[in-house]
Amino acid sequence: MIEVTEQRFTPKFDRNGLLSAVVVDAVSNEVLMVAFMDAEALDATRETGFAHFHSRSRGRLWKKGETSGNVLQVENILVDCDQDALVLKCIPAGPVCHTGERVCFFRKLDGDALVSVNT
Amino acid sequence: MIEVTEQRFTPKFDRNGLLSAVVVDAVSNEVLMVAFMDAEALDATRETGFAHFHSRSRGRLWKKGETSGNVLQVENILVDCDQDALVLKCIPAGPVCHTGERVCFFRKLDGDALVSVNT
Repeated sequence: MIEVTEQRFTPKFDRNGLLSAVVVDAVSNEVLMVAFMDAEALDATRETGFAHFHSRSRGRLWKKGETSGNVLQVENILVDCDQDALVLKCIPAGPVCHTGERVCFFRKLDGDALVSVNT
Repeated sequence: MIEVTEQRFTPKFDRNGLLSAVVVDAVSNEVLMVAFMDAEALDATRETGFAHFHSRSRGRLWKKGETSGNVLQVENILVDCDQDALVLKCIPAGPVCHTGERVCFFRKLDGDALVSVNT
């Protein structure tokens, strides 16, 4: 009975109604970006097959690439043990970062400085 | 001048004092777990070289593996464009998930069900 219960998808949103969503490249597993989803964003993602998030700064649903065209096609959604974090395995249509970089994690920590990494 | 400013590490904690931390395997890039860090956890991680997080449920600093021994040795810390999310490239000492699974993302979504993935 416990096993059956555990096999159902029951996402755990936090007190702000959000869960963490990590976007990785479906082929290389590289982390492309990290964002948050509320129930609306998760539903939109599952219904359309394209990644949607909740913008905390704008307070609204946000389809990744809605302006730039650099959408994320979702191949698979992995769910963690606590069901409060997701990994979206995606095929990106272009650079993911709003800076134009291929991925958002284009720098690493070196002491107190940030240095570029080859992405 | 802008470039110099942008190269400094100035982590952006949210209104709860937290930022997202994604732990990936330093060799394979696979996502192992996702957690949150406050300033205390980030400092402890940088000082010791082992991943520390902030437990939202327990409201305290948490060294990953403090009970199980399955610590995470941090090889590199990647910083995203907005400096509000980190990727910790780690060497895990053992299974990462508290369930005993090798990684926390051991299931994927299949309709409304969760099915095991080969990790």
